[in-house]
Amino acid sequence: DISVRDYQTSHRTIVLPGLINVAAFVPGLVSNGSSDLYSVTKASIAAGFSMIRVMPLGKTGSITDAISLKVAQQNSKRGSYCDFNFSVTATSNNANQISHVAGEVGSLFIPFNHLSDNISKVAAVEAHFDAWPTHKPIITDARTSDLASILLLASLHSRRIHVTAVSTKDDIKLIALGKEKGLKVTCDVSVYSLYLSQKDYPGCQFLPAIEDQVALWEHLETIDVFSIGSLPYQLAHFLQKPTDAAVGTADALPLLLTSVTEGKLTLEDIKTRLHDKPMEIFELHDQVGTSLEVEIDRPYAVPASEFWSPFSGKVMRGAVQRVTFQSKVVCLDGALLPDLPKGSDMSTHGAMPPPAVLSSPPTKPVHSSMA
Amino acid sequence: DISVRDYQTSHRTIVLPGLINVAAFVPGLVSNGSSDLYSVTKASIAAGFSMIRVMPLGKTGSITDAISLKVAQQNSKRGSYCDFNFSVTATSNNANQISHVAGEVGSLFIPFNHLSDNISKVAAVEAHFDAWPTHKPIITDARTSDLASILLLASLHSRRIHVTAVSTKDDIKLIALGKEKGLKVTCDVSVYSLYLSQKDYPGCQFLPAIEDQVALWEHLETIDVFSIGSLPYQLAHFLQKPTDAAVGTADALPLLLTSVTEGKLTLEDIKTRLHDKPMEIFELHDQVGTSLEVEIDRPYAVPASEFWSPFSGKVMRGAVQRVTFQSKVVCLDGALLPDLPKGSDMSTHGAMPPPAVLSSPPTKPVHSSMA
Ligand SMILES: [Zn+2]
Ligand SMILES: [Zn+2]
Ligand SMILES: [Zn+2]
Ligand SMILES: [Zn+2]
Ligand SMILES: [Zn+2]
Ligand SMILES: [Zn+2]
Ligand SMILES: [Zn+2]
Ligand SMILES: [Zn+2]
Repeated sequence: DISVRDYQTSHRTIVLPGLINVAAFVPGLVSNGSSDLYSVTKASIAAGFSMIRVMPLGKTGSITDAISLKVAQQNSKRGSYCDFNFSVTATSNNANQISHVAGEVGSLFIPFNHLSDNISKVAAVEAHFDAWPTHKPIITDARTSDLASILLLASLHSRRIHVTAVSTKDDIKLIALGKEKGLKVTCDVSVYSLYLSQKDYPGCQFLPAIEDQVALWEHLETIDVFSIGSLPYQLAHFLQKPTDAAVGTADALPLLLTSVTEGKLTLEDIKTRLHDKPMEIFELHDQVGTSLEVEIDRPYAVPASEFWSPFSGKVMRGAVQRVTFQSKVVCLDGALLPDLPKGSDMSTHGAMPPPAVLSSPPTKPVHSSMA
Repeated sequence: DISVRDYQTSHRTIVLPGLINVAAFVPGLVSNGSSDLYSVTKASIAAGFSMIRVMPLGKTGSITDAISLKVAQQNSKRGSYCDFNFSVTATSNNANQISHVAGEVGSLFIPFNHLSDNISKVAAVEAHFDAWPTHKPIITDARTSDLASILLLASLHSRRIHVTAVSTKDDIKLIALGKEKGLKVTCDVSVYSLYLSQKDYPGCQFLPAIEDQVALWEHLETIDVFSIGSLPYQLAHFLQKPTDAAVGTADALPLLLTSVTEGKLTLEDIKTRLHDKPMEIFELHDQVGTSLEVEIDRPYAVPASEFWSPFSGKVMRGAVQRVTFQSKVVCLDGALLPDLPKGSDMSTHGAMPPPAVLSSPPTKPVHSSMA
């Protein structure tokens, strides 16, 4: 199955399990009649992500009670191209309500940023810890002192906690120290944070400073998961580009695969952080009959697409060739095949499959050829 | 030795070991030529405190380097009526310098309040933890998220930490939870916080709200130490009263002893929190030949003294009768006997005495009599 382009240059094709984006931002998630979930899942499956965990940006896209959850569930009836998983967001006064929706969402998100009614009070976080089922994951975007604070509370309550979108030297060091000392903490870093910094976009506070970015790469072993997050959306907004819901989704894998060709990452690093660890941390089902083929080494310029990208026109050396979802090829060379969306709401599928099912085969080259 | 006043009403005289004020505020500590240390030690010995640990209020009275330490040491040559013990205060940029003075001070104080260059950054606190000798005590005035944050760092570094002047429900609950879960944290509460609240002085933010005060009393078992602290000085300042260095010192024991007569405290509660625990936490020498006799039960109106007090004219039922320091009676019925000051700098006496010496005899009534 050497493809048409095989003779152009040296390359390898690799089979990976269906990838998981643990932080997919869906702006209109709780807006009546929004098709953002449809769009994001469509872009996700084409980019190799067969499962997304939907995460808000502050209040935007936040499920905070039974009513907003209903709206999100209603919006999902438009169809979704990959599986998805909702979370409930803690606010300063919904600790009493979250237990009512706990059965219908995958995790609790405790935001410290971008919220006007910031949950920075220890007591409020305490209340949420006490109200949330002990076996269900908790995620936070806390930074600096807030991060230390919530790590302590998690430790005192013997709860695991996942820190999303880590972007500074101090925070990744604190997490590294915490792991070293036995804290049950995991984290993800947005792919954009690994490749873009304030050096590229001065004044763009949500991007890491260059020394922060260096520290993130130095602490690769501390990073459990790579995510997409809301960073592409925020950057588009900052640069006054079109803020499509799916912006940035297609960039993740080509960026990471290109780093493999440069020796900065291994394929196993990617598989671990986009499949194995996300499954383990968020106790996700394995997706039967789901996989993708990616091609690496062959250079190409990122083509203009329907979504704005800061990497448009840049040379990459990794691309998604084929995506198989529920045992059917749904995507070839970035183009979705005409088919009905087959994804479903996996929010309530919280149980871990038995350990034997958990381990997926190691990444293996299907073939490699020379030009 | 029934005193003249014995027949007036029922009372008891109790012998206590020399008391320790773990947070004595000395405003002019590092001001050239200040006699504040002299004044504070004089008021302290008369009030039953034979040892004070000097603590700053933000930058006021802060030893931050070798130069300010020299000034404090020079000021102490004026004489001190009780033993004293200095600490070095962490600033955002003196982590490299504190190790130079570590040998000449008793502990490291990490302030989070009242400082213009707030040390709220995890990294700065980290640096201080790493620079400070592992066996020497660390004290902080951190609150809410900052408190949780420093408790985590202390835990990650396996360091003991003492929280001074705890004044809110949330903080005392967090400390209680921490202790329950095995964190090596201790704390003190200012005596004024137990007896004065914002209900008494509306707008006085540094006093506890009434529900905070209730929580402090409810968590008596969590409170390791009672202290005097800078609260009396702050209150005097707030009310535009004279802010003498020693303000509030004389009120502490009468207030606590009066609570004993009301059944709210036991004498053991006081001895534990003003002697045993301070010695243990701050690894202080036992003061040989030092003790005091206090009288309880007999009511009297607090007389006007040279220092302003919010309790002046109020009825108390406990008073210091006699203070013995270095085997000599130095104070009788609140009046200092004419003698040279005999206190010394105990900052470098960091070693714990052998365990056998540590336990002082339990509080025992000398005699009690009826009117
Ligand atoms: Zn090929
Ligand atoms: Zn709790
Ligand atoms: Zn899988
Ligand atoms: Zn299931
Ligand atoms: Zn008597
Ligand atoms: Zn450290
Ligand atoms: Zn003693
Ligand atoms: Zn000694």
